[in-house]
Amino acid sequence: MATLIAPSNHSPQEDAEALRKAFEGWGTDEKTVIVILGHRTVYQRQQIRRVYEEIFQEDLVKRLESEIKGDFEKAVYRWILEPADRDAVLANVAIKNGKNYNVIVEIATILSPEELLAVRRAYLNRYKHSLEEDVAAHTSGHLRQLLVGLVTSYRYVGDEINPKLAQTEAEILHDAVKEKKGSYEETIRVLTTRSRTQLVATFNCYREIHGTSISKKLVDEGSDEFQRALYTAIRGIKDPIKYYEKVVRNAIKKVGTDEDALTRVVVSRAEKDLKIISEVYYKRNSVLLEHAIAKETSGDYKKFLLTLLGKED
Amino acid sequence: MATLIAPSNHSPQEDAEALRKAFEGWGTDEKTVIVILGHRTVYQRQQIRRVYEEIFQEDLVKRLESEIKGDFEKAVYRWILEPADRDAVLANVAIKNGKNYNVIVEIATILSPEELLAVRRAYLNRYKHSLEEDVAAHTSGHLRQLLVGLVTSYRYVGDEINPKLAQTEAEILHDAVKEKKGSYEETIRVLTTRSRTQLVATFNCYREIHGTSISKKLVDEGSDEFQRALYTAIRGIKDPIKYYEKVVRNAIKKVGTDEDALTRVVVSRAEKDLKIISEVYYKRNSVLLEHAIAKETSGDYKKFLLTLLGKED
Repeated sequence: MATLIAPSNHSPQEDAEALRKAFEGWGTDEKTVIVILGHRTVYQRQQIRRVYEEIFQEDLVKRLESEIKGDFEKAVYRWILEPADRDAVLANVAIKNGKNYNVIVEIATILSPEELLAVRRAYLNRYKHSLEEDVAAHTSGHLRQLLVGLVTSYRYVGDEINPKLAQTEAEILHDAVKEKKGSYEETIRVLTTRSRTQLVATFNCYREIHGTSISKKLVDEGSDEFQRALYTAIRGIKDPIKYYEKVVRNAIKKVGTDEDALTRVVVSRAEKDLKIISEVYYKRNSVLLEHAIAKETSGDYKKFLLTLLGKED
Repeated sequence: MATLIAPSNHSPQEDAEALRKAFEGWGTDEKTVIVILGHRTVYQRQQIRRVYEEIFQEDLVKRLESEIKGDFEKAVYRWILEPADRDAVLANVAIKNGKNYNVIVEIATILSPEELLAVRRAYLNRYKHSLEEDVAAHTSGHLRQLLVGLVTSYRYVGDEINPKLAQTEAEILHDAVKEKKGSYEETIRVLTTRSRTQLVATFNCYREIHGTSISKKLVDEGSDEFQRALYTAIRGIKDPIKYYEKVVRNAIKKVGTDEDALTRVVVSRAEKDLKIISEVYYKRNSVLLEHAIAKETSGDYKKFLLTLLGKED
């Protein structure tokens, strides 16, 4: 369930004109930007971009970049892009920063196979490189194998599972992930090629055999990048909602707040399942997500996030 | 350039009825099967399948399988499928046989990125597994890394190349492939992620630096499966026409003839570039391809292949 509140009918032309007016004169009228863009679906936003360019002969995205600043700008920028294009940008930033590979794992494990394909297509269009090409060029060893395997996967989507395989592969995961014995090759194969349904069956087998969840105590202070990526992959496949709740929780909890992570989850999920993530957050933390966010953010950035959460005044 | 000769207008209904008539009574009228199906484009063949099923309430492909036999049946069966579906079948047979991985390398390196994607989609539909899932489950080590990397690739298609990268990566290939020193990891990365244009530039650099083609003397009697797959990948990327010419040449030269390989090339390329392959074959062997094939094959199988070559009487 989405949190975004958008009118069923809107006039792209009126929106474009109101935005243009908000940019004109001294300073920017941020409120208008928030009120309009924070209440439009992905389709409506693309219409506004198109009409804006037609009327004013300039790129709305570029204009926004020059008008607003900081976390607010980042959030609006990510929001106005089409989802596949946004994820391509997020992936590229993660590759360049060279340490936030969990963003890549998140995209690769949580999106549907067709959505992931759309991201790869958008990435090619933007950067004239393939996503896997850039991932592979910046990593090595098991980390490369895992990440490239994840971003290039095109998994079977369907209910057919093989229970025997789930048992065998639960043990493969156990040996490598918990016992840390043997090679990671087989673990990478299982996690990068099996369908989500099959993997969930495998994780359930794991719990039945070993009495504990596979994602429990998988990483600690001493874990390396590969192990953290493995952990993210398992959690992203196992339960996307719980995964996102934890990303938001950690982002808020962090000293200084991790705005990038917070923005990413709100912007990526506001039209999808942010309502459910927010409910799970409340159950886990006994604090409403909007209150927690309001406490840790400020200004237009705060207003914009709360608008996407469907909670502005 | 294609070799297939097909009428620009045909009646799918008349074709379906003529085929049905060819199946009826004692024995099958193979000549009609060849005359009709051997002269229809992929689109026309799919129309015939659809209309045949509508009129006679049976699957034309299944009926054909029960009517004809041997290499002829295999060739007609492969021919009547849509290209992506055919390649999915070829890949699956190769995985099951467990030793003809060059078919998989061929599909993954010669098809365009979108065509390869269509094969992966067709594979999923047919087998309820992903192509990479089955490849990975049947292989290990470097062979797995190479094959999975190739079949999951979605390469940049465009003219932009990075000449400096071509030089660096020519040396990476040289060290691993010729000197056999260091790990194959980087070689696999380069071959599975770079665009075809970039790789051709890299191979050209290789030749300039080392005075010899990268594919020269790459494999010998002692080469293992991985090295053979690597060799096939390099040749498929480097020059598909020359690659196919050699596949056909070896298939014909082989004691007893390799009908599977011969059928694969004729059926896969008859609507694409079989004319050029055939010209290159003639230059290389001073024998017309149709004569060479006619000498090594017989009966309906021979007639069918020659029809696809545009050379029946």
